[in-house]
Amino acid sequence: MYLLDQRALPFTQTWLRYDSAEGVAEALRTMVVRGAPAIGIAAAFGLVLAARQRLAAGGAWRAALEQDFALLLHTRPTGANLGWALNRMRERLQRLRERDDPLAALEAEALEIHASDREANLTMAQLGTDLIRRQQGNVQALLTHCNTGALATGGFGTALGVIRGAWLDGMVERVYANETRPWLQGSRLTAWELANDGIPVTVNADSAAAHLMKTKGITWVIVGADCITANGDVVSKIGTYQLAVTAMHHGVRFMVVAPSSTIDLTLASGDEVSLEIRDSRELLEVHGHPVAPGMEAFNPVFDVTPADLIDAIVTEKGVVERPDTAKLTQLMCRKRLH
Amino acid sequence: MYLLDQRALPFTQTWLRYDSAEGVAEALRTMVVRGAPAIGIAAAFGLVLAARQRLAAGGAWRAALEQDFALLLHTRPTGANLGWALNRMRERLQRLRERDDPLAALEAEALEIHASDREANLTMAQLGTDLIRRQQGNVQALLTHCNTGALATGGFGTALGVIRGAWLDGMVERVYANETRPWLQGSRLTAWELANDGIPVTVNADSAAAHLMKTKGITWVIVGADCITANGDVVSKIGTYQLAVTAMHHGVRFMVVAPSSTIDLTLASGDEVSLEIRDSRELLEVHGHPVAPGMEAFNPVFDVTPADLIDAIVTEKGVVERPDTAKLTQLMCRKRLH
Repeated sequence: MYLLDQRALPFTQTWLRYDSAEGVAEALRTMVVRGAPAIGIAAAFGLVLAARQRLAAGGAWRAALEQDFALLLHTRPTGANLGWALNRMRERLQRLRERDDPLAALEAEALEIHASDREANLTMAQLGTDLIRRQQGNVQALLTHCNTGALATGGFGTALGVIRGAWLDGMVERVYANETRPWLQGSRLTAWELANDGIPVTVNADSAAAHLMKTKGITWVIVGADCITANGDVVSKIGTYQLAVTAMHHGVRFMVVAPSSTIDLTLASGDEVSLEIRDSRELLEVHGHPVAPGMEAFNPVFDVTPADLIDAIVTEKGVVERPDTAKLTQLMCRKRLH
Repeated sequence: MYLLDQRALPFTQTWLRYDSAEGVAEALRTMVVRGAPAIGIAAAFGLVLAARQRLAAGGAWRAALEQDFALLLHTRPTGANLGWALNRMRERLQRLRERDDPLAALEAEALEIHASDREANLTMAQLGTDLIRRQQGNVQALLTHCNTGALATGGFGTALGVIRGAWLDGMVERVYANETRPWLQGSRLTAWELANDGIPVTVNADSAAAHLMKTKGITWVIVGADCITANGDVVSKIGTYQLAVTAMHHGVRFMVVAPSSTIDLTLASGDEVSLEIRDSRELLEVHGHPVAPGMEAFNPVFDVTPADLIDAIVTEKGVVERPDTAKLTQLMCRKRLH
C-alpha cells in the first residue's frame, strides 16, 4: 500500500510504500498520515498487510494477528476512528465462514471502510451546507482549524467537505485557515487543498482568530473532531477549544463535522479521553529547523471542547444541534442516512 | 550606537552598529529591535545620530531634522511609545537655550528616556507583584504572551518584569510562554530570558492557552501593551485579545503592564489606533524557511483588547483596576511614583 507523505506537503508529493503493519504503525506515529478518519482507514489497510504476512507464515495466524491489532491501535491514543476501524476488521474476522478467504474478506472490509467514509463525507457536506443556508444563505466568511480535507479522510473532507459544499452552493466569500501550530496543517495542507480547488483562502496565525471574528464578519467556525463522547464533548486538534470559547464570545456559530465513527458512546464525557501529548520538538523546531533549542515545551495536540460551546455536530447520520447525551444516543441508533 | 539583533536570537548574539537615522529606521522596520518601549528608546537615540549628521552638515539643521523625526515616527504605526519618545526629544529641542549644545542636550534626553524606562520597569515589577500577592500569595502558574522583557524595554521588562518580581518573591511555580506566532518572540526571546534567570518556563503553542487555563491552574495572564487608549482599551501583540477572552471565560485574572508612555489619552478607544499589518511572508516562512509558499496570508500583528476584559493596568504611576476613561485620566495627572 502507498501513503502520501503529508509531512512533505506542500513541497513534494512523495508516496511511501508499505508492506507491513509495523511500517504502517510507524507511518501513523510519525504523522505520514494524520486526520482521525484517515488514520482509521490506513490502520484497516495496515491490518490487511499484517494478515497477509501472518497467513503466509502459517500456524496460529489469528492469535498472531492480535499483536498487529494492538500495535496499530496504540499508535495514536486519542482518535476514536482508529479503534472503530480496527473493531470493524475484527468483527469481519469473527464473521468469517469456513469457506471464506480471510485475506479477501479483510481487504473488502478495509475498502468498505474507506468507501463509506468518503460517502459519509459527501452526506455531511450536504447536511452542513443545508445548516449554513438555513441560518444565512448569502456569501460569508468561514474560519477553520487544522486540516479536515481529503488528506484527513477517505476523500472529500469533514469540516472542509462542508466548506467545499458551501462553496459549490455559492455561499463562501472567503475561508480563513488557522495555520495550526505546531504542525501547520492549516497553512501547509488546508490552504493547499482549498487553493487547488480555487476556493479563496487566507492563512492566519492561530492567535488572530478572535481579531478576525471581530473584524472580518465570520459567521461560522467549522472544525473536525478526533473523538466525540456521549455527552457531545468534542476532542479535537489543540486550539479547537480556544476557538469555541472565542466563537461563543462573538456570537459566531460553531459547527463540528465528523463521521459517526468518531462518536464513542462508551465515553461519558471528554474527561475520559486520553489526550495525546507529542514530542516538544514539534514546537521547538519547524520542519527540523530549530527555533528555540533546549527550551522546555508542553505539546498537547488535542483538547476538549465542552458540548455547551457547540452549536451543531454534523454526522452522516444527521445533524445534532446543541448536543447532549440523549440526542447523541438517539442519533447513533439511526440507520445511515445514505 | 549598537543594537542587539533580536531576529538572530537565541542562536547568535549579534550587535549591529548604526550611524544614521536611516539605519535605525530600517532596524525598527525589520525588527532588529522590537517591543514598544525599546522602539521608543532606539528611536530617541536614532534622532541623536540624525542631529549629529544634520549639525555637521550645517545650515538649517532644525528644519532638516524634521525629516528624521518623520522617518523614525513612521517605522512602526501602532506603538505609542515611539511617538512619545520622539515628542520628548522635540520638546527638549524646543527648550534649548542659545548657549546649550544641541547634541549634548538631545543625547542627555535619550539617555534619560532610557533610564526612566528602566526605572519604570522596576516600579511596575513591584506594583504588579503586590497585586499578585494581594490575590493569592502562594506559588502559582502564570501565562504570558510575546516578549516583554529586557529585550523589549529599557531593561527589566514590563509583564516579564512583574513575573521576575513575583519569582523573586517566591510566588512563581512556573511560567507558561505562548510561543507567539508568527515571530516566535515567546519561544525565542521570553523563554530564553527566563531560562537565563533560572525561572521555570514552558513554551506552548498559542492555541493551547485555553487548554492550559483549564488544566494547569493558571492564576494570571500577564502581558505588555503597545498602546493604551483613554478608555483603557489595550492594543498589544496579536493574540492578546484572544487570551483576554479566554481568561475571562476561565475566571483567570488579566494584567496589562506598561509604562505610562504607552498611554495615549488623545485616542478615545482602540478603534482609533492604526493596527499594523506586516508582510504575509512572516506567516508563510519561519526564519526564511518556507512553510506554505505562494499562499495568501493575513498578518495583523496587533489587536485590541477592550477595557472590560482587563482586571488591571499596571504602570509606574500606579495600578488601575477595571480601567475606564476617568481612572486613566486621573492616573495620567499624577506625578511619577518613583
